[in-house]
Amino acid sequence: MGKNKVRVSSSVAREQLLVGPGFKLADIDPNSTPGFEGANGDAKELAAELFLERDEELADLQERMYARARADLPDAPSVLVVLQGMDASGKGGIIRRVFGSVDPQGLAIKSFKSPTKEELEHDFLWRVEPHAPKPGFIGIFDRSHYEDVLIQRVREFAPPEEIERRYGAIIDFEQRLVDSGTKVLKFMLHVGPEEQEERLLERIERPDKHWKYNTGDIDERELWDEYAEAYQIALERTSMPNAPWWVIPANKKWYSRLAVKAILLRTLRDMELEWPEVTFDQDEERERLEQSTAKILGE
Amino acid sequence: MGKNKVRVSSSVAREQLLVGPGFKLADIDPNSTPGFEGANGDAKELAAELFLERDEELADLQERMYARARADLPDAPSVLVVLQGMDASGKGGIIRRVFGSVDPQGLAIKSFKSPTKEELEHDFLWRVEPHAPKPGFIGIFDRSHYEDVLIQRVREFAPPEEIERRYGAIIDFEQRLVDSGTKVLKFMLHVGPEEQEERLLERIERPDKHWKYNTGDIDERELWDEYAEAYQIALERTSMPNAPWWVIPANKKWYSRLAVKAILLRTLRDMELEWPEVTFDQDEERERLEQSTAKILGE
Repeated sequence: MGKNKVRVSSSVAREQLLVGPGFKLADIDPNSTPGFEGANGDAKELAAELFLERDEELADLQERMYARARADLPDAPSVLVVLQGMDASGKGGIIRRVFGSVDPQGLAIKSFKSPTKEELEHDFLWRVEPHAPKPGFIGIFDRSHYEDVLIQRVREFAPPEEIERRYGAIIDFEQRLVDSGTKVLKFMLHVGPEEQEERLLERIERPDKHWKYNTGDIDERELWDEYAEAYQIALERTSMPNAPWWVIPANKKWYSRLAVKAILLRTLRDMELEWPEVTFDQDEERERLEQSTAKILGE
Repeated sequence: MGKNKVRVSSSVAREQLLVGPGFKLADIDPNSTPGFEGANGDAKELAAELFLERDEELADLQERMYARARADLPDAPSVLVVLQGMDASGKGGIIRRVFGSVDPQGLAIKSFKSPTKEELEHDFLWRVEPHAPKPGFIGIFDRSHYEDVLIQRVREFAPPEEIERRYGAIIDFEQRLVDSGTKVLKFMLHVGPEEQEERLLERIERPDKHWKYNTGDIDERELWDEYAEAYQIALERTSMPNAPWWVIPANKKWYSRLAVKAILLRTLRDMELEWPEVTFDQDEERERLEQSTAKILGE
């Protein structure tokens, strides 16, 4: 069968998964695979193939971005990828599988855990701001400042008016990142409760997965509907043209990884990342190099 | 031909390349490939194959180390890899190719540039200490505190007695890391002046390599013999049983990458990294999971 039949349409994925006006989380089927419809059941294998094909391009684009930053170009950009989702929705797998092909020297990964006592003494963005990616880097937030309007809302760790204030503060914060040259991409990995059950069960059962399991995961799971509501509000309030949210159906790991990669690739391509211009006199440097060789080797 | 004929002997590499008593940098041929002698010229291809074979094992061992740290085990270890070498000796390639197969979430890469004004106001280890790897991580220093006895010695940025003091301070610092559970592995990528010339020329010529070129690279290159002397002293003074140096012949990139990977793998294997024991009651958690499902789905 021809590859064309199952080729993922990144523009379809990008548009269909985007959180825009009228967005309803409840309408998104976590099992669906928008933009990638493999007719014959072998979609997964073909996806794996397509996935690998794009590794080289992704690594190349990141290196160009990094090169522009190293050359001190005034418009040197960066990318910030925000990953959110319930436990076991696949955030770690996205980082490993999607970003694993990128030079690790160009990644800045920050995992946000429960805030420390010191962090709680400051505004909620205090601990986030220092991790804004430097020019040339792809910054990845594994959980993020959105926890401050998700778990904090569900658990009522902050009063409603403070939660309310935070949506605006987040929009302002992200706009500042955009203004300083950072592309902000936000992905909510949307897993269903049955799929989460299977994945948590695996963590309970398998010796190589125990370490990923936390008894508190079930406490959060029990608040499934409350989290869905908190996500709905956060997504619709903070999906901005310059800092959009995509909701990625995540019951099929191969799909969520392919979709995130496709959107990331499209974003990097659209940045038209040229290699920086040469900043030195090539003839002169060739000459100096040759002379240094004569000196070292005593010729 | 049989693979056995060219299989790299990691124990040979590990022992032959180790900096021990009587070590002379001048005796090491940058073109050599100790422990990996491919008779028929296709050693490079076979090396590539062997290289890939080990990716999965390396990723697995790192994940085990990370798991032990996440489980808050008191003996949770970490690894610190120090990379040194002249410009274009392949430090960046080692990070990308050797560590590219490891989950980037388990890496902490720090590239040390020329010290800032603030850094110079402190002891030379002040800027280094905060980057000691956390338990579970592989920390990678791209250049390191050794610059303070290399370029600083060659360029006389610090007086001789201060350089002298630093060897001891480095030994003490690394011993502290070892005492707190960090395996310290130090690699000097040993490239020859002719090979460096070719690589620098490539950076001068190729638009996708310009950004890696710095006109100052030639200034350092002209001090080749002085650097060789500074390396000789630093290596012999600071190669400790618990924090050894290996000098890796680096004219052949495939070899230097394979050798570093082999030594790293052997180190991780020797750590006997078991998955952490389960810390929760599996029956109880299975039960709680099931009940939460009934609650969410209203069954």
